[in-house]
Amino acid sequence: MKAQDYPPEVLELLASLKRMPGVGSKGAERLALWFLQQGRNEAQRLAAALSTAVSTVGYCPCCGFFSTEGKLCTACSDTTRDSSLLCLVEQPTDVLPIERCGIFRGLYHCLGGKISPLDGVMPEDLSVEKLLERVRALPGCEVILALSSDVEGEATALYLAEQLSPLPCKVSRLAQGLPAGAGLGHADPITLMRALQGRSGLL
Amino acid sequence: MKAQDYPPEVLELLASLKRMPGVGSKGAERLALWFLQQGRNEAQRLAAALSTAVSTVGYCPCCGFFSTEGKLCTACSDTTRDSSLLCLVEQPTDVLPIERCGIFRGLYHCLGGKISPLDGVMPEDLSVEKLLERVRALPGCEVILALSSDVEGEATALYLAEQLSPLPCKVSRLAQGLPAGAGLGHADPITLMRALQGRSGLL
Repeated sequence: MKAQDYPPEVLELLASLKRMPGVGSKGAERLALWFLQQGRNEAQRLAAALSTAVSTVGYCPCCGFFSTEGKLCTACSDTTRDSSLLCLVEQPTDVLPIERCGIFRGLYHCLGGKISPLDGVMPEDLSVEKLLERVRALPGCEVILALSSDVEGEATALYLAEQLSPLPCKVSRLAQGLPAGAGLGHADPITLMRALQGRSGLL
Repeated sequence: MKAQDYPPEVLELLASLKRMPGVGSKGAERLALWFLQQGRNEAQRLAAALSTAVSTVGYCPCCGFFSTEGKLCTACSDTTRDSSLLCLVEQPTDVLPIERCGIFRGLYHCLGGKISPLDGVMPEDLSVEKLLERVRALPGCEVILALSSDVEGEATALYLAEQLSPLPCKVSRLAQGLPAGAGLGHADPITLMRALQGRSGLL
């Protein structure tokens, strides 16, 4: 007697789904079952979206945000934006939260990650050289470091500040403190410490 | 100034990923970023696997397990299996755990779900009629109800037992009790109650 197993096409689908980050054996089985039972149209749609995305979507040659067919992204090709403000983010996905808050009118630079020797990410793996080049071409600009406030983000900010210091630019960073709507009771000591250190005058 | 947004190809990928069960906006963004940054090969592979699976994988016309191109599945086409044992499971994915335990040598029947009026699943949505047909063609067989031990599974088992009672077959169900390796301290009261009710003689 041969043990029953999934048809090879299902096994291949399971293997492909399991390669996605955060998806394990059980999750892949649940997704495959869903695609085969209720989601046949969704499967075709996702297959097409994946093919199209990986074949047409690349990075903006200037800032590193997503763009199609090697063109400049919307922000970089928008001449009404303030090119003297350069917001430095880790990932292309960090651009959208900043756009959504509606207050920033400058340009972006996506670093491609943060310095993290434990994960094998060193400064030369990030688009630091290109950042310095852009800053050199924009004398008097302000570079806003919008990196995450964890250890690697801090280290990256310090490294970049050092690299940028000989150039004719201002360097600033996002304020650290209490998030909107949060009570003191839920703030961790480091957040509170930074909120105290960064306190601003009212009267 | 136009707000920066993802290129339409990325937006379409995000929308398709978000349709998957258990994947929200953040999860879809994380997956899309991964596909576009590290997983371009995986994206092509998953796209191909999805297309192939939904176009070739269907269900075994006899038991409802996965099979390709409308053929009988491995179990149903295996003449060395004991056709007088019919293991009834909810989903095709429930077949594999039973196969893996290595003790079952009979055939399967996938119901396609369990009766759950709250989710709009009624007996006529499940392959009950086909089960009765199979049992009628196999007089003297044993139907083993291997349904989940939640409320819907119990209700489905009771309903099926009633439907099967006029037919010339035995009906049994999986034992309920302590899972292997579990201590009494972690067993919930219902599990313990069922373990007591189903106790078996030793001496």
